[in-house]
Amino acid sequence: MTEEITAALLKFRDERDWEQFHNPKDLAIALNIEAAELLELFLWKDPEHANLDKIKEELADVFSYALLLANKYNLDVNQIILDKIKLNNHKYPIDKAKGTAKKYNEL
Amino acid sequence: MTEEITAALLKFRDERDWEQFHNPKDLAIALNIEAAELLELFLWKDPEHANLDKIKEELADVFSYALLLANKYNLDVNQIILDKIKLNNHKYPIDKAKGTAKKYNEL
Amino acid sequence: MTEEITAALLKFRDERDWEQFHNPKDLAIALNIEAAELLELFLWKDPEHANLDKIKEELADVFSYALLLANKYNLDVNQIILDKIKLNNHKYPIDKAKGTAKKYNEL
Amino acid sequence: MTEEITAALLKFRDERDWEQFHNPKDLAIALNIEAAELLELFLWKDPEHANLDKIKEELADVFSYALLLANKYNLDVNQIILDKIKLNNHKYPIDKAKGTAKKYNEL
Repeated sequence: MTEEITAALLKFRDERDWEQFHNPKDLAIALNIEAAELLELFLWKDPEHANLDKIKEELADVFSYALLLANKYNLDVNQIILDKIKLNNHKYPIDKAKGTAKKYNEL
Repeated sequence: MTEEITAALLKFRDERDWEQFHNPKDLAIALNIEAAELLELFLWKDPEHANLDKIKEELADVFSYALLLANKYNLDVNQIILDKIKLNNHKYPIDKAKGTAKKYNEL
Repeated sequence: MTEEITAALLKFRDERDWEQFHNPKDLAIALNIEAAELLELFLWKDPEHANLDKIKEELADVFSYALLLANKYNLDVNQIILDKIKLNNHKYPIDKAKGTAKKYNEL
Repeated sequence: MTEEITAALLKFRDERDWEQFHNPKDLAIALNIEAAELLELFLWKDPEHANLDKIKEELADVFSYALLLANKYNLDVNQIILDKIKLNNHKYPIDKAKGTAKKYNEL
């Protein structure tokens, strides 16, 4: 997905001349704000009562800022995720992590 | 990217029998925590001093939980982002939004 | 609590010459990070299984950055909370808000 | 401040019959959301351009949920902060931490 979608996000940004605001620190702040807006859809309720239309919108915002941040550093999104899964395979070995939600430093 | 990477994330999850913990509310919580860990890399400093290797790891975690949440609802990630860009084109018309960082309700 | 505790926080800060880092934006970032660390104690679990000793520590961090931020603007913490309760009395009138977790704009 | 203000917060809550929603996990979620709304006031801008009236409101919300969470566990807010300062005195010894924003595990 990355190239096409990122191109659409950059087009939206540049039509508004917003690159001047998009330094990595503020993009990371924006990502946190969108993640919190997504989380708000689950506040005070069981997950099945969250509004799916709004989840789509807020999750899209999360992806958008994550992609813009990846673009700032010219990161290959697929690659960084695959690298992290490999790292997590070491942090969470199957025999120790299976069936438990403990953090790696408590396994 | 979505299918392949999501498949790798689900494989990692299922090998550890973690689906039982992955309800949408806790996935949204996990996404917030990872977004905050990413933001911490920029705390007390200018963006150019943030550690890029750690940014890759934390950004990968953000993408991972966002993809797992999208998977929970069988969402087409490309589609929800394109839909949101369309919506934002209305919320932020170019002639009003150009060159300003104001929120849509202040334009 | 405010004066004594704030004095202790400022002493800790000034002994380390950290005021140079404590601009309001970074204090707000730090507050978000601590709030997320507090939330992590509830991740993947029912609230009664969260670790109380760690809750105390992370909640203390949240209060500390909130107090440092209030101090930056010379705010009277008691007063801003009482003012907000008054405002919320209008946003959430008892007859409409009683027994429902809806947001004020959905009442 | 704690007793009086907490009493005002509990009165506001109980008049609306909201205790049923206020389990610690959702209170911690609410705290994160309010912290993010506070942070949003600093997004895309230098700290001196943030709106002080809104800062007061969002910071009040942060304090309110932090106090409600402390109340859930019958915590003495002053005490947990003083305990944490003592702990941080060990994590951040003055001679190592002075003038640097490094995290304790990097000192």
